[in-house]
Parts: sequence; structure tokens; C-alpha cells
Amino acid sequence: MTDSAGKPLAPGPEYLIRRLTVIGVGLIGGSLARALRRARLVEEVVGCGRSLDNLHRAVELGVIDRYSQDPAVAVEGADLVFLSVPLGAMAPTFSAIRDHLAPGAVLTDGGSVKGSVVADARQVFGQVPERFVPGHPIAGTEHSGVEASFAELYRNRRVILTPLSTTDPSAITRVQAMWEACGAEVIHMDVDHHDEVLAATSHLPHLLAYALVDSLARLHENDEIFRYAAGGFRDFTRIASSHPVMWRDICLANRAALGQMLARFQGELAELAAAVERGDGDGLLGMFERAKAARDRYVGRLG
Amino acid sequence: MTDSAGKPLAPGPEYLIRRLTVIGVGLIGGSLARALRRARLVEEVVGCGRSLDNLHRAVELGVIDRYSQDPAVAVEGADLVFLSVPLGAMAPTFSAIRDHLAPGAVLTDGGSVKGSVVADARQVFGQVPERFVPGHPIAGTEHSGVEASFAELYRNRRVILTPLSTTDPSAITRVQAMWEACGAEVIHMDVDHHDEVLAATSHLPHLLAYALVDSLARLHENDEIFRYAAGGFRDFTRIASSHPVMWRDICLANRAALGQMLARFQGELAELAAAVERGDGDGLLGMFERAKAARDRYVGRLG
Repeated sequence: MTDSAGKPLAPGPEYLIRRLTVIGVGLIGGSLARALRRARLVEEVVGCGRSLDNLHRAVELGVIDRYSQDPAVAVEGADLVFLSVPLGAMAPTFSAIRDHLAPGAVLTDGGSVKGSVVADARQVFGQVPERFVPGHPIAGTEHSGVEASFAELYRNRRVILTPLSTTDPSAITRVQAMWEACGAEVIHMDVDHHDEVLAATSHLPHLLAYALVDSLARLHENDEIFRYAAGGFRDFTRIASSHPVMWRDICLANRAALGQMLARFQGELAELAAAVERGDGDGLLGMFERAKAARDRYVGRLG
Repeated sequence: MTDSAGKPLAPGPEYLIRRLTVIGVGLIGGSLARALRRARLVEEVVGCGRSLDNLHRAVELGVIDRYSQDPAVAVEGADLVFLSVPLGAMAPTFSAIRDHLAPGAVLTDGGSVKGSVVADARQVFGQVPERFVPGHPIAGTEHSGVEASFAELYRNRRVILTPLSTTDPSAITRVQAMWEACGAEVIHMDVDHHDEVLAATSHLPHLLAYALVDSLARLHENDEIFRYAAGGFRDFTRIASSHPVMWRDICLANRAALGQMLARFQGELAELAAAVERGDGDGLLGMFERAKAARDRYVGRLG
């Protein structure tokens, strides 16, 4: 292993996973492979992806042992298959691997929207496979590609699994053990609830950051305005440097919940604009105090 | 000095400022005093403020030498007076010190909106004093109070001065030298342009962060939703932990420019919501790519 590991977390003569196939060896998939390798819980990692350069780099970095650019070949003999491709690529990837999964293979994913992934699986497989465990690690940075991956990405983060009533309990157990080995806390949630919660806490903030930066970029052609941005602005808009294709796919995949959340926020913003317009200091102060209290209680202590 | 200084930056037998009065010894005023002390450019610092506890603490920390809670007393004999009070307190503070400033004293401030401060000065003094140099250090954290202050706050930050055509050039030079001694880059700008630029890069982002957190807090009474917020959300909403009274005052003081910027952003958000609604992937991707490119070019390199 050329992973920048420290001591292995477990000696593990008994591997949790004999052969892990990671389709999409980027920040999310690469970090999972690194964490499992460091914990010595995986014997072999096979990568799959569109960019040969990225796959070569993944081998050089020791994140994967080998690769195939054909998903059907990459999943051969794998006992665990992890899909970390943009949401728009889930359906074609399911199609490509459908007839090539090993018997008993557990399939899971890292998609940021669960309703669309479950619908894609249902459409491609006829019904959602019993050994498919939809999942979503709540972790990431604004960077992408295997270069950006690191073994600690999931430590003290939450992973949400959204199994169906028909999902095989042993497959759930296995996926849960995998994420816990990466240092994550695993939570179970309904598919729809997941998509609502994420629309509010992740998808809407990303859209606001993109909209703000785009709005400013359109305001002054020469971008002079960004020169005066202070630390708060940089923090606020960091997520606007995220992967545009990934976020387009998330918006399309979570249209319904995101549309509701956007409408809600537009209402809140209209109230706020009206308070500014009429100089309603008490109204503004009330909102700011509620928001500060909520953030300090539930987010501030996390840093 | 009990400042956590390192080596002094300048030996300075010749003080730039003999007696500095800081009205409002919080993050902004306290950090200015610390930086000037560390650079040995100030002989004596007098504090003034409403909280006795904070003033006691400022003396203990070595940020100020002594204090008075009466602005008229605090400014006696000061050759430089720095106002770092909430915008709503500027006019009463001007009134309190008007007849007590030493001859030749230079007056400057750190208010986040310049139009309202200049208007307050004009109203209280009859005309804007020639030795008043309106200023705004583009620096801060979400914390407040003298405990949060530190000497490095202004290092490599920008300070915008918005002198009028009637402002005494020697007063401008003195204020500029003061900020440069703190490690800041000083920029001159028209009052109105300052207020537009700050509405876009600071005031609007703060309002969006407050509105987002408040919107989520109202969505789920038990705040369960915040449990699933990831790093992006924490960064995005950090500024919602800022001082509510200060931000109420900023909104009221910069109503006109902020109202325009809010309207502009509401238009952008409506476009975005429409693109989500109709599933316009190309439209979404175009906006995300423009925003990412703009941020990466102008903000990303700053961290």
C-alpha cells in the first residue's frame, strides 16, 4: 500500500470484503477504498471509470489494485460493488452490470439523491434488487477526482442508508459494517425523507451559493467586485466551486423536493426583502436572533 | 503589555499616535489596538463602551490602558479617535463627543456602511468634519467582544477609506498609515460605490445565510434537520452566527443598495427555480459552470 496510512486500525486476517469494485474512483469512491485498505478490511480493489488518467493515478496512489473501463468486466467476482458515479450515470451503469454481478454480490451506492437511484434500479432490474442497499455518505469537499480522496473523509461523518422493506437484512448489515469501519455513524431513513432533508441542508445551500456567485459575476463584467470579498464570502461560496455536472444531476434527480424547498426559501427571502424595504428593525432582529440561536445550538458546536 | 505579541514590528521611539481612543472595544476596535500596540505605534489606549465587564477584560488583556464609559471623557486629549460601535450607535456617539474632541484630533470609524455614517456625521456636526475619515476594514470573524480580538486580524486584509472631497489630506494620510501598520492594504473608494460593493459581497450573503438557517429552523420544530448538515452547510451558514444587532443595523443603514441587490438575487433565484421546475439541465449546468469559473478565478486562490 502506498496509502499515506499510519498504523492499520485492525490486523484483519479475515477480510470484510474480498473484492471491492468501485465504479467512479473519485473523491467519494477513492476515499472509501483508502479507508477500507487502511483498516485492512479489503483484499482487492478493482476500479472502473471513464478517465484513464484518473485510473492510472488511482493505481499509482495505491487506491485500487487494477481497473477495467468496462463495468461488466470490473464487477466480475466482486462481493461488494460501490457505485459513485454522477446520478445521471446510475441507470446506464446498472444496465451495464446487471447480468455480470456475482451471485450474492452486495450492491450499494453513494448517490446524493435516493429516490432517483431507487427508481433507476427498479427500471433496469425490473424490481429493486434485494441485495442493493441505497446509501449516501454525508461527506465531501469541493474537490473531485482520486487525487482529492483521503482515508479520513468519513471519520465522524454520517452515512444514511435507505433500505426498502424488501432489502436483504444481511446486505444491510454488510454495508453498515463497511461504513462503520471507515469511522462513520450509520443512520437509516426513508427514501423520501432523505431526499427532503438533503434538499434542505445540502442541495438548496449549493444552489444559493451558485446563484450568488453567478449573480455577482453578471453584475460586474470585470469581476472587480470579488476583490473586496472577505472571509465570510469565501466560506459562504466555497461550495460554488463544486462539480457542476454532479450538481446539475442532483437538481434534476431531486426536482420535487428541491422545488418545494426553493419555493419555501423564496417566501422567506421575500419576507426579508420586505422587512429591509420598510426598515423593520424588529422584524430583522427577530429573524437574525432565531437563526443565530438555531445555528449555535445545532451546528456551531461542530465547528 | 500582556498582549500575546511576538517581537515588536518596529522599535518606534516616535509614536504614530500618542493617545488612541477606541469607542467600542470589541473584535474590530480591540484588534486595532492590539495591532498598534504590537507595532509600538501607540503610546496610550483609552477604551470606551457600554459593558463594564468587557472594559475590565480589555484592561486585563492589555488591549487598553484605561477606560471611561462616558465618550466625552474618553476622547479628551486623544489625537486619534476610532469608532467601532454598531451603525445605530454612530449618531449618538458623534453627539456625545462633538464638543470634546481635542483640536486637530483625527476621527475615523470602522462601520460596514459608509453612506449612513457620513450622513450621521453631517447631521450631528452640521457638516462632515474635515478631520473625519470614514473607513471600513474588510475583516472579521463571527465572534465578538474583546476576547475575540487579535493583533493579526487585519494582516493582508483590505481597508476601504471613503474620504470626501472636503476631507483633510493629512488626516487621510494618518489613518492610512495606521491601517498599513496593522498589515492591511488600504483602498480609497466613493461612499456609494463602497455601499454597493459591500451589499453584494457581504450584506447579501449574510442575509442569505440567516434566511436559510431560519427557514430550516421553521421547517422542523425539533431541529432534527440540522443533524444531517455536512461541512458545506456549516461553512455556508457560519456567518449566520454573527452579531444580530450589528446586522440589523447594517440592513437598515444600507437599505437602498441592499434592496437592489436582494431584488437582483431574487430574480436570479426565480430563473434557477424555473430551470429546476422544467428540468432544464443545460440551463443549470451553464449557471453552475459560470459560477464555478468565477469563484475559482477570483476567490478560490484566496482560500
